[in-house]
Amino acid sequence: MQDAQAKYIGILWYIEWLSSMEAHMHGIEELIYDGRTKYQRVTIARTGSFGLVLFLDGYAQSSEEDEFIYHESLVHPAMLTHPHPRSVLVVGGGEGATIREVLKHESVQRVVMVDIDRELVELAKKYLHEWHRGSFDDPRVELVFMDGKEYIENTNEKFDVIILDLTDPIKDTPGVLLYTKEFYESVKKALTPEGVMVTQATSARYYLRAFSVINNTVSTVFPVARPYKVFVPAFYSEWGFVLGSLSRDPLAIPRAELEERLGKLNLRFLDLDHYYFLFKIPRYMEEKMRKYREISTMSHPLEISL
Amino acid sequence: MQDAQAKYIGILWYIEWLSSMEAHMHGIEELIYDGRTKYQRVTIARTGSFGLVLFLDGYAQSSEEDEFIYHESLVHPAMLTHPHPRSVLVVGGGEGATIREVLKHESVQRVVMVDIDRELVELAKKYLHEWHRGSFDDPRVELVFMDGKEYIENTNEKFDVIILDLTDPIKDTPGVLLYTKEFYESVKKALTPEGVMVTQATSARYYLRAFSVINNTVSTVFPVARPYKVFVPAFYSEWGFVLGSLSRDPLAIPRAELEERLGKLNLRFLDLDHYYFLFKIPRYMEEKMRKYREISTMSHPLEISL
Amino acid sequence: MQDAQAKYIGILWYIEWLSSMEAHMHGIEELIYDGRTKYQRVTIARTGSFGLVLFLDGYAQSSEEDEFIYHESLVHPAMLTHPHPRSVLVVGGGEGATIREVLKHESVQRVVMVDIDRELVELAKKYLHEWHRGSFDDPRVELVFMDGKEYIENTNEKFDVIILDLTDPIKDTPGVLLYTKEFYESVKKALTPEGVMVTQATSARYYLRAFSVINNTVSTVFPVARPYKVFVPAFYSEWGFVLGSLSRDPLAIPRAELEERLGKLNLRFLDLDHYYFLFKIPRYMEEKMRKYREISTMSHPLEISL
Amino acid sequence: MQDAQAKYIGILWYIEWLSSMEAHMHGIEELIYDGRTKYQRVTIARTGSFGLVLFLDGYAQSSEEDEFIYHESLVHPAMLTHPHPRSVLVVGGGEGATIREVLKHESVQRVVMVDIDRELVELAKKYLHEWHRGSFDDPRVELVFMDGKEYIENTNEKFDVIILDLTDPIKDTPGVLLYTKEFYESVKKALTPEGVMVTQATSARYYLRAFSVINNTVSTVFPVARPYKVFVPAFYSEWGFVLGSLSRDPLAIPRAELEERLGKLNLRFLDLDHYYFLFKIPRYMEEKMRKYREISTMSHPLEISL
Repeated sequence: MQDAQAKYIGILWYIEWLSSMEAHMHGIEELIYDGRTKYQRVTIARTGSFGLVLFLDGYAQSSEEDEFIYHESLVHPAMLTHPHPRSVLVVGGGEGATIREVLKHESVQRVVMVDIDRELVELAKKYLHEWHRGSFDDPRVELVFMDGKEYIENTNEKFDVIILDLTDPIKDTPGVLLYTKEFYESVKKALTPEGVMVTQATSARYYLRAFSVINNTVSTVFPVARPYKVFVPAFYSEWGFVLGSLSRDPLAIPRAELEERLGKLNLRFLDLDHYYFLFKIPRYMEEKMRKYREISTMSHPLEISL
Repeated sequence: MQDAQAKYIGILWYIEWLSSMEAHMHGIEELIYDGRTKYQRVTIARTGSFGLVLFLDGYAQSSEEDEFIYHESLVHPAMLTHPHPRSVLVVGGGEGATIREVLKHESVQRVVMVDIDRELVELAKKYLHEWHRGSFDDPRVELVFMDGKEYIENTNEKFDVIILDLTDPIKDTPGVLLYTKEFYESVKKALTPEGVMVTQATSARYYLRAFSVINNTVSTVFPVARPYKVFVPAFYSEWGFVLGSLSRDPLAIPRAELEERLGKLNLRFLDLDHYYFLFKIPRYMEEKMRKYREISTMSHPLEISL
Repeated sequence: MQDAQAKYIGILWYIEWLSSMEAHMHGIEELIYDGRTKYQRVTIARTGSFGLVLFLDGYAQSSEEDEFIYHESLVHPAMLTHPHPRSVLVVGGGEGATIREVLKHESVQRVVMVDIDRELVELAKKYLHEWHRGSFDDPRVELVFMDGKEYIENTNEKFDVIILDLTDPIKDTPGVLLYTKEFYESVKKALTPEGVMVTQATSARYYLRAFSVINNTVSTVFPVARPYKVFVPAFYSEWGFVLGSLSRDPLAIPRAELEERLGKLNLRFLDLDHYYFLFKIPRYMEEKMRKYREISTMSHPLEISL
Repeated sequence: MQDAQAKYIGILWYIEWLSSMEAHMHGIEELIYDGRTKYQRVTIARTGSFGLVLFLDGYAQSSEEDEFIYHESLVHPAMLTHPHPRSVLVVGGGEGATIREVLKHESVQRVVMVDIDRELVELAKKYLHEWHRGSFDDPRVELVFMDGKEYIENTNEKFDVIILDLTDPIKDTPGVLLYTKEFYESVKKALTPEGVMVTQATSARYYLRAFSVINNTVSTVFPVARPYKVFVPAFYSEWGFVLGSLSRDPLAIPRAELEERLGKLNLRFLDLDHYYFLFKIPRYMEEKMRKYREISTMSHPLEISL
């Protein structure tokens, strides 16, 4: 903005502390909501940077402008890896955009969404229509408000696909337990024989170690494990995911099947080329990832210290 | 960083104003240099975000951590599109990393680098060894300190490849003229029959209109024109480029040739998959780009107002 | 905070731009209200810096922690300079703290408060009880919602004291007209023979020129004019005021009268010593003020460009 | 700056963290020096806020624009309280402005300045001429580079005035020991019979508890103790000091003596009125100070946690 006419400089700012030495500032045009639920600080704001943004506990969760990149990339690789997903479990995903993407698959008959934070979901229903698009009212959806870990450990139901749309494993938060070997074993038990799971796996830049460790951990539990990433502008970096499959490899789906099924979904971002590209970890990143060899367990869980 | 122990919060910060409502903050560990050359404010700092960073007039130009992504993506598509590049002209690129990449092609016999800012190049020689790696001393390189536009308009020499590594066309800066139809016509005249040019083309997120208009403009001058982009972390967005070719299409290079030549370069980022992916503009971006139909001319040049 | 444990760094910030090269950041604990009235952007927030703060159009107007310093210093010198103030006109002062201070004088029988912004006063009633303490409901108070300039120019009523608690004369805002010679002449006409007026007069540090010009202007209209200042933490500087009197000099009030009347008011900040000290402009400030010789008129009004 | 044309917004900023929820931002026009001495991070910059500023470890120590307010207020009350100061010890005060003020008293024959940080003093000599004005070269001055506490505990010399111009007692820094009862007892021993000491005593707003505790502690050691404060713009608050005297009370100096001696000093800020006003602690501040009853000792030292 130097040497330019600034008609207006923001006065109310949301600052994301990416570390103690790096931050991103979002000028706020209109603060829609700022308050605490039982579990987290929720801020919903119309920003000058990314339009409407949902922030949780200091960090952008998704923005109106690019949430489709994140949500399409989170949901569809797992859904497509399963040949015919009928029942899907989503853990987290309070905005409702994850189930929105799941429901695009016509084979889907039942979606259980488990989120610990009922107030957050109420806020999403009220303020984030662009995200959920009414998905909470789809008759195939069952909403459950409880701890996702407890739900998975105690359910008798089996799902074709399980999608873990969680907050990051920040030190001293209960979320760390949802990235452990023991937890992934519970997930595995809750899957049908051709079942597929996917988890968000933190930033491939800011927390490359976390991304690597999650990948290592999923790899010890699932016969097929694939890390992948996509650039999401509102995260300033490529975002990581790890897919675990009991049977089919996401890179072994017949091209024709992939093309046909993707075609029906009518997506904004993910097409055939981008699907394959998700799984191309660049050489320099792969080299760094290879250095992290540990896995996350209940006794020594992965923890992000900011 | 919330709810975490911050041992140290940065006190000296470089703030990049991406707009009047968005900014990125870089905590500075060590300020190596901050001063004005005849042409621009130059800041070289060891940051907590991206290691050593060169900033010009308020914006990161390249960072130690990811400059190779930018420079490999800028240089090699044009070099590879030419079947046998011997002579190369680089305009801008004061850090020396652009010529570093050019010199990796063994066919290259002569590189002319024209930069208006001698002081900047001196600073790069002194402080940015990681960028140039001694390339300024390569006997194939001739350094010329003058206005790149003037050089191209007045030279009788013909080049196989011309690389435009310029600052953005910011309103009221002379740089705006280096993105016009008339300028690209001069570039075309300075090319050999199979010649190829490439220009950096601003951020594909923050200045998508500029990226589109540059693409439109190159397309009116060159028989083959291809926009492409790559995610560069230090730019928080995908960065745009436009390649113009007098003969070969970068997407029509025989795969075997591409594989062989890329293999010899021993790059950190660009491999065969990433090469092809550069040119995949996502659907949502393409739709937005299609709306911008104007071209940039001397009488109505493209200008970025921040 | 360097080298210390920061348990929590603010994420939502209100940034006051004191100039393009200086700013103050307020971490927000709870945003009470943020919206636009017909006239201005109103933000009411519980801050980590000054407790509850009212911000208008980018600037702190007053804070829970120190508004009494500002309001006591604004109101009482004028009230005390009049021997027996019965009727008082307040222009501006939407928070209600100015009339709160006025009403402490037992001689007062009638207070007219004219504020252009009805919505702001409604917000103050709702959220700023600490400021108004119910003063809006005092039977002696009449609230009028209209332009203060128009009110003063058209009223037939005479007041013993007129208090101008206005926003600063920022360029291109209607407020600039309320600091002109012509306006002060209207004020003078609306005063009783021993009448006294006072105006806030901007920051004695950031806008020392404005403070000086307001003083010059009042001095051309009133037989007695006295600039004074007080340090208000939430303004990071000493704040200026100018008092104009038709008869008595605030520095010529018999000490015994001052002591007795001040004693009855039961104030938190202003006592006899501080009263006299208000009027002591330090030598270095006086020297700077003397350089500004112009006055503000309708044709050449004082304007603050930030 | 809202609604105004900002020609230029700062890009390099020094951020002072007043707490985790409050900060002041200084746009830097020119960074003169930024580096670490053996003891602290020293930054000398031409700012857009206060001109040339010396920052130590994250905080403004003094600014070109208003250092005279701080240094005149620190030095002269103690000097004037002593009837005829000949020998003066200054601990800290690396900028050289404290000794500059001391040397204005014609009775002074010897000044010992003890600063632990030789490099800082070298930087001051080089860059901060406006502060020291050549005082380091005055033949009456002896510079000693060592720990001030050690110096005072071990010297046999007696001084008429001792001035403690120290950094704040920040937790986990050695400075905390220079605000303890035991240290003040050493100071007392190093004074002549009519000796006077003064210490800076932190911000009367941000660290009012520290100011109070220092006052309490000095009061237990010296027969006469007086807290005082002055508003220093570059500290955004009133700054505290505590004076301890073995004999004369600073408020009992004959007015004629005060007037005559002050007159000779030719100061920019401190005159007779301002001298007396230094000691007027406002009622609201006094009430808060009275709540803090503890003193600082070696076993339980006062510590500021930011």
